[in-house]
Amino acid sequence: MEASGRKLRLGMVGGGRGIGVAHRVAALMDNQAELVAGCFSRDHDRCLEIGRQMYVPPERCYRSYEEMADAEAALPEDRRIDVVTVITRNSFHFPISKTFFERGFHVICDKPMTCTLDDARELVRIVEATGLVFCLTHNYTGNLLVRQARAMLAGGELGELSRFIVEYLQGGDRIRFAPRPEPKNWLDDPAQVGPGGTLADIGTHAFNLLEYISGDRVVALCCDRTDLTGRTLVPRDAAMLVRLAGGARGTLTCSQIAPGESNELNFRLYATGGALEWHQNRPEVMRVTREGVANRIVWRGRDMAPGVQELVRAWPAHPEGFLEAFGNIYLGAYEAVRAHLDGRPMRPEDYRCPTVYDGLRAMRFVTAALESFERGSVWVPLEG
Amino acid sequence: MEASGRKLRLGMVGGGRGIGVAHRVAALMDNQAELVAGCFSRDHDRCLEIGRQMYVPPERCYRSYEEMADAEAALPEDRRIDVVTVITRNSFHFPISKTFFERGFHVICDKPMTCTLDDARELVRIVEATGLVFCLTHNYTGNLLVRQARAMLAGGELGELSRFIVEYLQGGDRIRFAPRPEPKNWLDDPAQVGPGGTLADIGTHAFNLLEYISGDRVVALCCDRTDLTGRTLVPRDAAMLVRLAGGARGTLTCSQIAPGESNELNFRLYATGGALEWHQNRPEVMRVTREGVANRIVWRGRDMAPGVQELVRAWPAHPEGFLEAFGNIYLGAYEAVRAHLDGRPMRPEDYRCPTVYDGLRAMRFVTAALESFERGSVWVPLEG
Amino acid sequence: MEASGRKLRLGMVGGGRGIGVAHRVAALMDNQAELVAGCFSRDHDRCLEIGRQMYVPPERCYRSYEEMADAEAALPEDRRIDVVTVITRNSFHFPISKTFFERGFHVICDKPMTCTLDDARELVRIVEATGLVFCLTHNYTGNLLVRQARAMLAGGELGELSRFIVEYLQGGDRIRFAPRPEPKNWLDDPAQVGPGGTLADIGTHAFNLLEYISGDRVVALCCDRTDLTGRTLVPRDAAMLVRLAGGARGTLTCSQIAPGESNELNFRLYATGGALEWHQNRPEVMRVTREGVANRIVWRGRDMAPGVQELVRAWPAHPEGFLEAFGNIYLGAYEAVRAHLDGRPMRPEDYRCPTVYDGLRAMRFVTAALESFERGSVWVPLEG
Amino acid sequence: MEASGRKLRLGMVGGGRGIGVAHRVAALMDNQAELVAGCFSRDHDRCLEIGRQMYVPPERCYRSYEEMADAEAALPEDRRIDVVTVITRNSFHFPISKTFFERGFHVICDKPMTCTLDDARELVRIVEATGLVFCLTHNYTGNLLVRQARAMLAGGELGELSRFIVEYLQGGDRIRFAPRPEPKNWLDDPAQVGPGGTLADIGTHAFNLLEYISGDRVVALCCDRTDLTGRTLVPRDAAMLVRLAGGARGTLTCSQIAPGESNELNFRLYATGGALEWHQNRPEVMRVTREGVANRIVWRGRDMAPGVQELVRAWPAHPEGFLEAFGNIYLGAYEAVRAHLDGRPMRPEDYRCPTVYDGLRAMRFVTAALESFERGSVWVPLEG
Repeated sequence: MEASGRKLRLGMVGGGRGIGVAHRVAALMDNQAELVAGCFSRDHDRCLEIGRQMYVPPERCYRSYEEMADAEAALPEDRRIDVVTVITRNSFHFPISKTFFERGFHVICDKPMTCTLDDARELVRIVEATGLVFCLTHNYTGNLLVRQARAMLAGGELGELSRFIVEYLQGGDRIRFAPRPEPKNWLDDPAQVGPGGTLADIGTHAFNLLEYISGDRVVALCCDRTDLTGRTLVPRDAAMLVRLAGGARGTLTCSQIAPGESNELNFRLYATGGALEWHQNRPEVMRVTREGVANRIVWRGRDMAPGVQELVRAWPAHPEGFLEAFGNIYLGAYEAVRAHLDGRPMRPEDYRCPTVYDGLRAMRFVTAALESFERGSVWVPLEG
Repeated sequence: MEASGRKLRLGMVGGGRGIGVAHRVAALMDNQAELVAGCFSRDHDRCLEIGRQMYVPPERCYRSYEEMADAEAALPEDRRIDVVTVITRNSFHFPISKTFFERGFHVICDKPMTCTLDDARELVRIVEATGLVFCLTHNYTGNLLVRQARAMLAGGELGELSRFIVEYLQGGDRIRFAPRPEPKNWLDDPAQVGPGGTLADIGTHAFNLLEYISGDRVVALCCDRTDLTGRTLVPRDAAMLVRLAGGARGTLTCSQIAPGESNELNFRLYATGGALEWHQNRPEVMRVTREGVANRIVWRGRDMAPGVQELVRAWPAHPEGFLEAFGNIYLGAYEAVRAHLDGRPMRPEDYRCPTVYDGLRAMRFVTAALESFERGSVWVPLEG
Repeated sequence: MEASGRKLRLGMVGGGRGIGVAHRVAALMDNQAELVAGCFSRDHDRCLEIGRQMYVPPERCYRSYEEMADAEAALPEDRRIDVVTVITRNSFHFPISKTFFERGFHVICDKPMTCTLDDARELVRIVEATGLVFCLTHNYTGNLLVRQARAMLAGGELGELSRFIVEYLQGGDRIRFAPRPEPKNWLDDPAQVGPGGTLADIGTHAFNLLEYISGDRVVALCCDRTDLTGRTLVPRDAAMLVRLAGGARGTLTCSQIAPGESNELNFRLYATGGALEWHQNRPEVMRVTREGVANRIVWRGRDMAPGVQELVRAWPAHPEGFLEAFGNIYLGAYEAVRAHLDGRPMRPEDYRCPTVYDGLRAMRFVTAALESFERGSVWVPLEG
Repeated sequence: MEASGRKLRLGMVGGGRGIGVAHRVAALMDNQAELVAGCFSRDHDRCLEIGRQMYVPPERCYRSYEEMADAEAALPEDRRIDVVTVITRNSFHFPISKTFFERGFHVICDKPMTCTLDDARELVRIVEATGLVFCLTHNYTGNLLVRQARAMLAGGELGELSRFIVEYLQGGDRIRFAPRPEPKNWLDDPAQVGPGGTLADIGTHAFNLLEYISGDRVVALCCDRTDLTGRTLVPRDAAMLVRLAGGARGTLTCSQIAPGESNELNFRLYATGGALEWHQNRPEVMRVTREGVANRIVWRGRDMAPGVQELVRAWPAHPEGFLEAFGNIYLGAYEAVRAHLDGRPMRPEDYRCPTVYDGLRAMRFVTAALESFERGSVWVPLEG
């Protein structure tokens, strides 16, 4: 039976708390896959509890990802998972992905793909060697207005991109906002998140968004960080000047010590023939300025570009949001997995989701930004 | 096996186009049910196409709802559907619900529940006689900030409700907005939508929202409609003065000839100790004024009332929207269905979703509003 | 010397506190008049203090408005005031205006023009008999986007007006919002404000705005008020259904017990070819929907209608506001006064400011609204 | 007679078009000065026309600023101007200011103060040598919420400033936005605006705002500009990393090729105990996050800091804007002039308006930014 004739069988590693719910909803909302196995937590009771909630049989709720990889690989082909999604803390992304690739499974992985640039390069080699599908969940590129923005720029209707302001600010409404001298959770522990801190955690989203929308590549950056950031073990905050290959210039700011900001991933793009403004936390509207009409507020959902309109699940102003954008990433991954299963593998550049190369770019970004401010906030090129 | 040990089996009638996608996503996003049967369209090819997309076997893609009800009832208990969701045009809601009730199935039904008040009363009798679950998808009460607003008013922290402004405005960005002399689609045809027009189509949402949030009951209304409305076969627009039993007064406006408004379902509530403002198309934030702190912008997702916080799927500012709110309604219906299946039926007043009584109230509202302006926009009481 | 060759000489009655500063700034900001005399307060020390601040000589800082009227009338023609502006509490508007008219002075008067409909009619008679200029400071019609809205509707580019939502909400950020059983200031005292309360205080602004923008006349209304309102000596809050002669229908809500609302005077207008939305406290932008372009955010200041563009003092997004709008009303009054002084009196319908007939309409509105809810919220016509 | 006993006598150079109206309104709105002389335009007919509009006698409408300086100096002390305001194109600011200082007049001057750093230093020397008052109209610091922000940071209630995002974006709704190869007006001509282009024109406002609010000093910057900018004769656009002496870091972006942006001067400030967000074109509100209360929308006008509340002309949500902010700058200048006239000169650091030292700082900023990108976008320190 062709993979298009059945739901995909999905396994999940991690997701015992936090973003796990969002991944499960996103993965299943379009009824294109069923969740059949998981190692949802290193706490096996928690793992079983999630298994119960999600109707995963206890015998496929595993104690470790290694056990899961082995056991699933040993199942008959028509029962074992097709693809695994990895939602653990950062430092596990690479070894888990590698382990599942080694058993021949496709992999969907939360970002950052790895904690180091070397690991990222290694993962690229594995993906290229195996030909298996790897999808990185830079989920914000799943927002339909983000895709529309990319299409508008690519189509030339806004002219030539000149300036951009991209930012990702968090801080929430919990204060005192003072930097924490001791890691209070794993996000403060370099051993578990890698050295990138905020740069890896949210900066990569902003970077990915910029390259995605512009259809261009960052060639150099010059990064500074706050004094407060210096008091923490990993960077909590940075801002940088950024240059695109095509000549556009701009700034990218990412901070997790920005009181009051809940999840402010925003872009403003200025081109010779117009401009776009979008805010992730009001994702349904985009401010569009074009030849003759400034400041039109456009809603997601109607008259969108080919390849975008098809993904509309609800009419304009019947708000889609974070989970639907995330779901679009899963749909992209599933499409690539099905194509592979059916013997017609897609080229990664045709995937409708971020790939291992996006992950590599993101790690180059983190590495370059760290290098920039370690060397006194000098300009650092971003190679290939 | 207890119903809590398995996913529910869901059937669907209607949903071949339009809101169908939204219902399917909402019904399945939390992995609490599987879609196993459907009569998705009277066009059987379209029905089969949706079946394929949703992995419903062709033999359970039915040609008519009557066939579906009969065939499903004939299946063994452990295979047949538990509950059917009805998403057809309005005039079919009542006969389809009735048909499935007669075979012993639980029913989830899109609004309006019926086209006439008599039918609504009849449906109440059927539900009471059978003891089966009926859930009406007034989906906007599934928004978590709507539930939070209800909890805040119920908890007394805003004092006594005095004035409200509730509105539901549509019109979109498609113009010429002129009224259509001839019905161009079924929404203009009284035979298919009932006499209520906009009052039934969106006015009932606004009405339901008002009674839900206030925890109070409308006792009287005085309704006017535009001149333009009079040129169409069904009302396209109305506004009314509304009185609540507890003494609060306000206005309710609903219009589908409001150019530029995409889906503006809004409330502003003023009480003796504070105020709330919420807009459906920016559903993630609520403006809250309380003793000592005016105009705070509060995000969905944190520090919400008991029974609300548990429903959070994504962190604050990782926007949930229309589909998640709709999903919460389905979760409420599923909870009631499972309880019934497990022999511990809930009382309708404990359902965490709108019930047949909400549907009856809504039809009383439509009837009263129609009566008011037919009699020259006089005050009309809303009984029981 | 023609009046166009010199600044006008302005006198002021009232303005010792509150809105006085705003009137003075508005009256003088364009350098078209000089303030030369005043009875700024019944507290003569306060009167002299304001005189000092405004460089009005002490001998023209008067102890009573009667003294002022007499003394100014006794001055030589080239020294005495041309026009007086009246900014006292409501109950004095009528007698002061009358007194100054009797001495032959032109009058600018804060609203409401009178406390009763009879007085309003009497004032109309006086103005018609004397031929003197009377300008009523319904200042919000001085906002340039309000004038632009009127021009757009008059020009027909939005088609036929069908529905409107007009509201004026206050409440501020001072709470407890409970109604005050005893008058705490003159605004709660019917003897000083007239019986209209909020209807007169802010409702008339909303009413005037509606008639001004629509270029149409209210023919009937049906008014309800909150229960809380009933506990105060004057109405603090009301909402009503309103019908325009041209067939448009809508609601008008005014409240001064709306916590969190600072000065929310808003309109939304829906027509067959488009729509407009404007908020007084974001006065620089208007949301405009027209044939082919929905939801454009338009800034005050460019490409405005004839007669509007000329009044622009600052470029778009260099915000003008309340005082500039108020200033435009004064400019309109000064134009009429100069024309009269130069022997070419304008017809009131050509004034570029509200006239005594607007004041009469407003009193009819207050009277009809009061009558409506006293008779059980029935429809009441608004004559002429 | 003490200067406090009379209005100041103001002269004006420039203002024949553009910003002239705004300066005149701002200078006169509070009735603290009278406009008695001017050289409003090099086109003498235009000069006389403005004189007529403003009731300046023709004999004091001068043909050149030199003539004006000489003629006014020759008038008796009780007739000649006290202070001159200079509103010409940039390259004239310095020579005109110098000329009036040489005749002993106080000077109010539009920004930029000079076109070069050397001239700025020279002007400082002149001011220090003469002891006369010099006020630079960096008008945005006249906004009351800007002053409130400064007071809040100074008072320590938000903790320690860590990150800032300051931007000033223009572009308007006139497109095609392509860079102009030939100067179309004087703003594109380096000879008339100096080499700073956008940096001088609007960048200095953003810089001044940052130093004003933070109460801190920029110590270094690293500036990049767009490729498009390179195609114009003067910079049209730049962005930079900026460091404050106190350790805070941030970005400053200024652009005049940002389609759709009307006059977007914005700041977001993040500190260890809270955050502030303000937009010049919605100047009446500020988003305030503090210990325990995130995202409160605060209106100008109530409970403001000492020295700020006194400047309130209109209640909250009775919008003040650009002209009133500008008026506050003039009030600050007048205060300093009166003090000088009365023989009690204030120290410039006590002026309630920007001084010659602000102008010097601004020129250092422009110079450093130009040097930074001419040297390849390296870090450049900002001396004293």
